[in-house]
Amino acid sequence: MNPLPRVGITLGDPGGIGPEVVFKALAQLETLPPAQYIVFGPAGILDRESKASGVSLSFRTIGTAPPGEPGLYLEDLGPAPEGSVQGRPDAANGAASFLAFETAVARARAGHLEAVVTGPISKTSWSLAGVKARGHTEYLEGFYPQAIMCFWSDTLRVALFSHHVPLREALERVKKERLEAFLRVLERDLGRLGPGHFELLVAGLNPHAGEAGLIGSEEETEVKPALQAARAAGLPVTGPFPPDTVFRQVLGRPDRVAVALYHDQGLIAFKLTAFETGVNLTLGLPFVRTSPAHGTAFDIAGRGAADPRGMIEAIRLAAATRRA
Amino acid sequence: MNPLPRVGITLGDPGGIGPEVVFKALAQLETLPPAQYIVFGPAGILDRESKASGVSLSFRTIGTAPPGEPGLYLEDLGPAPEGSVQGRPDAANGAASFLAFETAVARARAGHLEAVVTGPISKTSWSLAGVKARGHTEYLEGFYPQAIMCFWSDTLRVALFSHHVPLREALERVKKERLEAFLRVLERDLGRLGPGHFELLVAGLNPHAGEAGLIGSEEETEVKPALQAARAAGLPVTGPFPPDTVFRQVLGRPDRVAVALYHDQGLIAFKLTAFETGVNLTLGLPFVRTSPAHGTAFDIAGRGAADPRGMIEAIRLAAATRRA
Repeated sequence: MNPLPRVGITLGDPGGIGPEVVFKALAQLETLPPAQYIVFGPAGILDRESKASGVSLSFRTIGTAPPGEPGLYLEDLGPAPEGSVQGRPDAANGAASFLAFETAVARARAGHLEAVVTGPISKTSWSLAGVKARGHTEYLEGFYPQAIMCFWSDTLRVALFSHHVPLREALERVKKERLEAFLRVLERDLGRLGPGHFELLVAGLNPHAGEAGLIGSEEETEVKPALQAARAAGLPVTGPFPPDTVFRQVLGRPDRVAVALYHDQGLIAFKLTAFETGVNLTLGLPFVRTSPAHGTAFDIAGRGAADPRGMIEAIRLAAATRRA
Repeated sequence: MNPLPRVGITLGDPGGIGPEVVFKALAQLETLPPAQYIVFGPAGILDRESKASGVSLSFRTIGTAPPGEPGLYLEDLGPAPEGSVQGRPDAANGAASFLAFETAVARARAGHLEAVVTGPISKTSWSLAGVKARGHTEYLEGFYPQAIMCFWSDTLRVALFSHHVPLREALERVKKERLEAFLRVLERDLGRLGPGHFELLVAGLNPHAGEAGLIGSEEETEVKPALQAARAAGLPVTGPFPPDTVFRQVLGRPDRVAVALYHDQGLIAFKLTAFETGVNLTLGLPFVRTSPAHGTAFDIAGRGAADPRGMIEAIRLAAATRRA
């Protein structure tokens, strides 16, 4: 295995702030962990960012690099899309951001990348471009149905048992076998994020985690049996905890990960505590995928005002991970 | 109407930190709004707190007070319960805290109090004492089925459309007629909390508030029609907003109240941002009821270490309210 991590980075939607935050992050290369950072995207968009910022970065092509040499590389996917619209969803931008993502994922699947960092895409742009996947995670789930969506920051770490499904369906998915399988994959892949050991604190589904069956039964019939099975298999799992206090138990504890049983349970907590520097992390793949938790921010695109901290944290987390 | 608010205050479970925080709050009487503060509880428990703190407070009986004269009053409900256990649930303590609450509510229902502030009770103590109601709010709902549970702080204000019901049932309750009726009662009673005007921001039920029907249908079939009807009736209501960002829109905005469609949606947000000074507020009654958001904290009872800020804020909010 290549001892230096190879981290693919996509620019995201050319009409959003993705290219800007990638460019700003890579301009601070000396502060990032040593790695081969390989940008996937139209070279024309990088040129645009260079002109806008007055900063010049030089990228090599990956084929010319001595194995294991750190630095910036470019997988050039052509000129900027025609028209190069900024500030709103656009079919050409959707096609460009999907091509970059698809290409980076293909390389990662082939074993050429340890991690992929994705710039924010517009789901509407993808839809306009005829892309079938709803977003990054859904595309990855097509290859890896056990993909797990996590949100990560120094302050709070959350894994979502389900994400973009109706709350009614999220409830139906809370079954003991499925939850136990999820916990096994999660625990295995958290092991890639460095030498640390993580304790998993699982939220209940109902108010007060059901209060021993008084407020809903799923904790008794599904969640507790799943946790018992996971513990019997040696997993460091506790719970179910009342959903409205479990995140306080995880806050500021880098050795703990909260397991949310549905999208908003985890994301209400995460977005209130760690929005600016938050990272979206996908586990359950043979590589790691990270992304800033923010979106395309069309309203401020092209103004040079975007905050690159989320992207920098996404790159750091990706560069620290070890391949499965 | 009595021009000076008459605020009943119950001590809560004698085995928890309720009596301590009430005593500490009332010891700062000069910093509280002018009102008649009438404590309901066993005089013996107040004596205990006085001895523990070395502070002496003098209480008058309400019958001897000139009408409208501010200060501290006591409705003596007898000596401390036999044994006076601290630090754990206890039947005698449950009976004592229920008697105090029942008495204060009866006075408020009869029109003798503008507001009732409740010290934290133990649901287990109540259950051991044979009390049928699960908690304060449930008891009030027996008289006033439209009672609304809110959580209030300078930082964040949240109203719960449903509270201690299984998540599955909370989902079923999201119906347009019921939600519209809730919003009408909420808007009416928020008018008692001072001269301000509140904008109501309603959360969706599903991730991303359903994304126009792509992730669940309740926003389209129930929530939006309820909001349209409420707006047509002149209510300052907006939404439905994505549940994971609506609380950020309300945070730090004293003119906004978030409406959560289920218990944890609102309480995950509230407990992460406003735990120490948070107030539990019940609207939908002909009087106002407040309480610190914290519980009995049996683990620190009797040590003198309890933080009275939540109780102080509960008293301030109660003293500022106007009767319907």
